[in-house]
This record gives sequence, structure tokens and C-alpha cells, in this order.
Amino acid sequence: MQTLVELPSAADIRQSHTLIQPFIHRTPVLSSQSINVMGGAQLFFKCENFQKIGAFKMRGASNAALRLADAARQKGLATHSSGNHAQAVAKIAQLLGVPAHIVMPENAPSVKREATAGYGAHIVFCAATQAAREETLAKILNETGATFIHPYDDYNVIAGQATAALELIEDLADLDAIIAPIGGGGLMSGTALSTHYFSPQTAVYGAEPEQVNDAWLSFKSGVRTPHLGLPSIADGLLTNLSEKTFGIIKTHLSDVFTVSEAEIVAAMKLVWERMKIVVEPSCVVPLAAVLKNPDVFAGKRVGIILTGGNVDLKRLPF
Amino acid sequence: MQTLVELPSAADIRQSHTLIQPFIHRTPVLSSQSINVMGGAQLFFKCENFQKIGAFKMRGASNAALRLADAARQKGLATHSSGNHAQAVAKIAQLLGVPAHIVMPENAPSVKREATAGYGAHIVFCAATQAAREETLAKILNETGATFIHPYDDYNVIAGQATAALELIEDLADLDAIIAPIGGGGLMSGTALSTHYFSPQTAVYGAEPEQVNDAWLSFKSGVRTPHLGLPSIADGLLTNLSEKTFGIIKTHLSDVFTVSEAEIVAAMKLVWERMKIVVEPSCVVPLAAVLKNPDVFAGKRVGIILTGGNVDLKRLPF
Repeated sequence: MQTLVELPSAADIRQSHTLIQPFIHRTPVLSSQSINVMGGAQLFFKCENFQKIGAFKMRGASNAALRLADAARQKGLATHSSGNHAQAVAKIAQLLGVPAHIVMPENAPSVKREATAGYGAHIVFCAATQAAREETLAKILNETGATFIHPYDDYNVIAGQATAALELIEDLADLDAIIAPIGGGGLMSGTALSTHYFSPQTAVYGAEPEQVNDAWLSFKSGVRTPHLGLPSIADGLLTNLSEKTFGIIKTHLSDVFTVSEAEIVAAMKLVWERMKIVVEPSCVVPLAAVLKNPDVFAGKRVGIILTGGNVDLKRLPF
Repeated sequence: MQTLVELPSAADIRQSHTLIQPFIHRTPVLSSQSINVMGGAQLFFKCENFQKIGAFKMRGASNAALRLADAARQKGLATHSSGNHAQAVAKIAQLLGVPAHIVMPENAPSVKREATAGYGAHIVFCAATQAAREETLAKILNETGATFIHPYDDYNVIAGQATAALELIEDLADLDAIIAPIGGGGLMSGTALSTHYFSPQTAVYGAEPEQVNDAWLSFKSGVRTPHLGLPSIADGLLTNLSEKTFGIIKTHLSDVFTVSEAEIVAAMKLVWERMKIVVEPSCVVPLAAVLKNPDVFAGKRVGIILTGGNVDLKRLPF
């Protein structure tokens, strides 16, 4: 086994799947008759909210950790994140019995701190700026010899996230389209690669909030373009694309859609009420896009990656 | 096929299962590693929150409707309820293409009215008293010739609800215990019968809110005893046992547990956060009882019927 330093091949993704299988759940694919009626399409939801740590991030972090040489792994894993990636790195480190060092801004919500600390990670707080974050991480890497696991700009992480779409395609061979949300682009680019390799007749789409539309700007212009930094309830999608993820997205996506904040809240309510599952706002952005674009999706068989279910139950938008 | 007028036999329950299968979902059984750790037991949740109309009630109402002679069925179904049973009767009537008449108190929450109306039922409002309810229903039965489907004091309904435990036992042959919530006792007595017939080595327990403890009072005293009418967040469990359901419960249960309102809210939060599924307060009462009684359940394999997921997302207790 070795670290992936080039664009993952079909074999790399299959091998990643085998490698991480003991550490992840094979999540179910659910459907809702009433949502199908509303969308005029057959929608198949890949439920990564049921994944370990409550999000697909467990796949990428596990793949990156498991591909490290043993000596490197023993020195520990490190990352900067206050979200699901932090929990994923903490959890796989715990399962492998190695240290995890997580850099978090000092204003990170207590619910996220506690979840990460609950997996036994060493949390280091820093000022809430990009510079403080990078500086603090660099100091930890120097002191401990731990390996930095980037949340998305890393082919090991991308190949790990790709395994969600691989499972979806294994379960449903004849999808017309697959759609995923776009934040930093790790899940989206992994989804695009798996669809390209394992179901080439299936179109791949991405979706993101209007207010955080860097992928839309970048895809339409062909040049990686940052968003304006507006807020969004979809707090997992606030990141800009990286070079690696944009390269894959540019090549393989059929289109990128954007949705409003109100459309995100409505889609989230729909999933909670009709499917009886807990999903976070970021995760319903593709469903909102499908409901908004019947010209593209009506009558189609559409796979939707539901990315996670980590939401503060005290602060729901409805 | 005919209406069941005596205590359902094992064959009656199996036949009921075959009969209703085209109209219900076979719901999944889920587990949570972290809840298992907390409970010191292996817990298997039968997820009737994923059932059609979002609750197990679809099973009993379907069985009662399908066992009617065709001439009777064509005249329609009727019941009084503002909860999941109303939705279940409305839904099976819709699927069978026959009328449904639902008597509801005029103060029923609009979310429940709308859900029932959404299945095409004819809703008749009455004053919020037992007398007004019965009088209004009697009038409808006289006028339309529709058949009254009682929410629980009916062996057809009980045999239908029994199919949830039958499926759980088919999926997991070696359970030490099965526990269900007790309201009017339809689900509980069905669960007790299925366990008795199909897994006689498994102990059956019931759980209810301390504030609505008629089953506990009745089970401990051996005499059917009503509760004091205090409120509870577990709004599906406010009913007293009936003669038929108490008869079965008295014979087959190993014990009845009660839990406080705070224990119900804590168990509900646990299921939402750890299992990422939407469940209503009534439905987590057995889990609260399992966590409260480690002396009974520790080290055991325990099946828990999660009864439903119909909850007003605007009025959550956390």
C-alpha cells in the first residue's frame, strides 16, 4: 500500500475501498415515494449521514491514514478543521491507536469541539484567521512529526470520498445522473471519478449555495475563482475549490447548479419530514437543485449523495 | 379471509403479514455502537418511523381494512383519532379506493389535520370531549354504513401491529428481550403475541411515561386501572389500556417500566444525534427504560420497536 500522489485510477479507488472497508459502514440507499412525486423523478439517496462520525469524511480520512507507512502513522495525524473532517481524523486515529492533533479556531462551536474531543483527539486552539491556523498547524507538525491530512486537496482523501459513489453505483447500475454538493470539492471530485470509471453513461452534476458559488463561477469561466465569502446555512460548503479538485470537476462534470438559502431550508425540512432522517443543511443542497431543475432531472433515475447528519439540534432553521 | 374475532393465533399473525405486505414497508433494523456502549447491551431498533405514514399504525389499520368483506369495505372506513391511526386509516382507504371518515377534536393541531387530509380523508370535527367524539362517530357510521376501525381494542388491529415484532424476530433469531411502548396497548399486545409464538425464549417488556402509568398500575395490581390524566410529551401514549390489550399484556409481559419526562427527552436527543433518524417522543420510551434498568438489560441482546417519526419540527423539546 502506498500514498497516492497522482490522479486516482479506477484501480486506486477500488483498492481504497478494500482498504477502508473494516473502518467504515456500507451505508444504505433510501428512497421516498412522496419526494419522487414532487421531483417527478426517481431519487436514490446514499445515506452518508449514517456513516461513522455521521459523515462521508470518514472515508477520505481513513484512506489517507491507512496509506501512510507505519513509522509515519505512529507519529500521528494532524489537520485544521472544526467540522466533520476533524472528527473523521480523530476517529480513524483512535481506531488505529495513534495520536490526532486538531487545530480549531477558538470560536468553534462547543458541540463540534466536544465531538472531536470525544474521539480522544488533542485539540489546539488558535485565533480564527487563516494565518493563525496554518502557523499553529506548522508548529505541531514540526514538534510531533505528525502527518497533515488535508480536508480535500489530497488524492488519498479524494479516492476515499470516491468510494461513496462506487457503492452507490454497485447498488444501482442504471442511474441517469449522480449529484453531490460542492465545498472544497473532495467529495465532488471523488464522485466524478467513480462515475467516470464505473458508470460512464451516467451524468455527474454538482450543487452549491448561491451565496458560496465559487464552483459555479469556476466551472462556468474555466478559471478557479473564489466566492465572495458570504455566509450560508450550509456550513460544510463554505470552502473554495482547490487546484486538484477543480481539475477533476472541470473535466468530468456536466453542470453545476446553485440554490438559495430558502431552497436549502425547504429541502432540509422535506427530508426530515418525509424520510425521517437527520441531515445537515449542506447535504440537501443537491436535492434542492434537483427540485429546482425539472428540465434536467424529470423522469430520470438520480443518485444523490446525502453527505452528513451532524447538526446542532438546538439551532434548527425551522 | 375474514375478520378476527378471537385472540389471534400464530397462523392468524402470519396470515395477516402476508395480507398486508403489499401495503406496508418491511422496515430496517438499525443499531448504534455508541448507544450500545451507553446501555452496556446490544440494542436492535426496528424502525417503524420509516413505515408508510411514518408509524407502525399502518400495519393494524391495513389488516383491519383488508379483512373486511368487499361490500363492507366499499362503504368506507371510519375512526376517531387525531394521531397516527387517523393517518393510517386514511392512507389504507386511499390505497384501496374507498372512503375514510375521520372524527377529530376541533383543537387538533393543524399539522395532524393536514397530514390526514393529505391522504384524501373526509375529516369531521367535533368538540374535544369523549362524548362528542363517540356521538359524532356513531352518526357517521349510521349515515354511511362505514366500518369503525378501533385504534387498538380490535384483534385485527392487534394482529397487524404484531407483524412488526414478527419481522424483527425473522431478522434476529436470538434476542434475549423485546421491549415496546404502551399506549392503548395495540402494539404492545401484538408484540407480546408474536414473541410468545415465534420466539418463546425471549422476554417481553413494556414501557410507558411515569405520568401516564395505567399499564404499570394495571400490570402490578392485576386489575385494569386508568392513569390520572397528567400530560406527557409522549403524546402517542396518553390512552388507557382496553380489555383486549390488557388481557394479553397481563398474560405475556415479564415487566412494565416507567420513565420520567426528562428521561424521554434525553433518549430522544440520543437517537436523533447518534442514529441520525427522526423519531417521535412516544417512540423512545422503551430506550429510556433500557438505559434506566441496566440490572435487567446489561449484557443482553434487546429488540426495541421504534414506533414512529411524526413530530412537529417546529416544536422540538431540545
